Amino acid sequence: MSDTRPIGIFDSGVGGLTVVGEIRKILPREEMIYFGDTARVPYGTKSKETVTRFSVENVEFLMKHNVKLVVVACNTASSLSLDFLKRCFRVPIIGVIEPGAKGAVSSTRNGRIGVIGTQATISSGAYERQIRKLRPDVRVFCRSCPMFVPLVEEGWLGKRVTAEIASIYLAPLRKKGVDTVVLGCTHYPLLKKVIGKAMGRGVRLIDSAREVAAGVKDLLDASGLLNDTGKGKKSRFFVSDEPGRFARMGERFLHRKIECAKRAE
Amino acid sequence: MSDTRPIGIFDSGVGGLTVVGEIRKILPREEMIYFGDTARVPYGTKSKETVTRFSVENVEFLMKHNVKLVVVACNTASSLSLDFLKRCFRVPIIGVIEPGAKGAVSSTRNGRIGVIGTQATISSGAYERQIRKLRPDVRVFCRSCPMFVPLVEEGWLGKRVTAEIASIYLAPLRKKGVDTVVLGCTHYPLLKKVIGKAMGRGVRLIDSAREVAAGVKDLLDASGLLNDTGKGKKSRFFVSDEPGRFARMGERFLHRKIECAKRAE
Repeated sequence: MSDTRPIGIFDSGVGGLTVVGEIRKILPREEMIYFGDTARVPYGTKSKETVTRFSVENVEFLMKHNVKLVVVACNTASSLSLDFLKRCFRVPIIGVIEPGAKGAVSSTRNGRIGVIGTQATISSGAYERQIRKLRPDVRVFCRSCPMFVPLVEEGWLGKRVTAEIASIYLAPLRKKGVDTVVLGCTHYPLLKKVIGKAMGRGVRLIDSAREVAAGVKDLLDASGLLNDTGKGKKSRFFVSDEPGRFARMGERFLHRKIECAKRAE
Repeated sequence: MSDTRPIGIFDSGVGGLTVVGEIRKILPREEMIYFGDTARVPYGTKSKETVTRFSVENVEFLMKHNVKLVVVACNTASSLSLDFLKRCFRVPIIGVIEPGAKGAVSSTRNGRIGVIGTQATISSGAYERQIRKLRPDVRVFCRSCPMFVPLVEEGWLGKRVTAEIASIYLAPLRKKGVDTVVLGCTHYPLLKKVIGKAMGRGVRLIDSAREVAAGVKDLLDASGLLNDTGKGKKSRFFVSDEPGRFARMGERFLHRKIECAKRAE
């Protein structure tokens, strides 16, 4: 059986495009409908109630496009709202926390894992809970890095100040001797080099986008929802603010041109 | 005649509290109703259409509280949406651009003015237009500083990286020999020291909050809307996200405790 319905993906803005890129790599036939809530971005400084209200609206939008699966590509929304979304909707919904936690647990050798993310993600404790559910003996050290998203959006990936800010945020994790760091925000993979340097050699960085894509494949496969027919349709991108800035910024995340971004009605 | 109705003030978040503080100083009898759109903050990276839609909703909220005047304390909303708001509503509406421009024009000696603000404020050209309307011979140099708001919200007012970032943003204005810089975003007054140092001695910084308060007083006075009776009522604060974070962050801007912030219904 083959299911040609699209996969729905939402994020607070452009960051979730890293997940689109990874899904495309391993599931090239799947059509994707992406929604970026660019009018209300960011989520990382907002409350559970507000992020959940926004997330419900985002899933409702995707449902109108008859999606077979929803990926919550935003770490903040996954941390704060995934359980509620799963209770509200009948479509399968995948967040980014569980795949990221799995990746971290299978990477660590010394049982010391660092997690970085937005304020809301970190204070939710979602990664910590998930990691300790998988391996209760692991020690988890968390740190919110609120300047990382603006740095990425400003495009300051190689600037000296960026390295300085990374070392301010990451010094405490380094001191704790973690051997694995979860990049708990879809913007952070763009700072991989800087973060890697600040953490020092031998520390592995877990980019949850990849783990999520693998999770999506497993789930579709297990439920008989894969699209096995011919070539996939082009993915479509929707945003709540005007599409121009999204398309420009998005190319940094997707590594290709975004031609058909539209404002969601 | 005395008008005891409150003054309405809105901003995308906490920044407009600097305007509340200045109005309170010179008009201690006036009650204020403040609305901070903390669920959808920031506005500075968003489109004219989206910011205008949000601004209309914000004014509608204030109108329910029977305000006698609306202050658009947000530079971005003032730049993009003030004209539209004035056409939509019958209550007098004041933005922050005109008072800031006036302040700059009366400050400059050499006719070279710098303006800093969010991306949306700067690319709107609103300050430049307003300044040149007042004095067409003045030269205006603009620069958006997207990292300043996150730096203030992170509380990194005295950090070395903050000084470095300020010098990156402000070097071009310094080169142009401006003698006056408009702080075209309500967050920037908190970085006055750093900005002043980066610009060098003899450069005057125009904090539009003060100019706006003076403008509010003039307008109320001229229209017979001042509250001349006894003691003023306590100001009230409403937000679109949960009030806790707003109250904590807001104290930095208002320099006093915010006791009664509520979520707007």
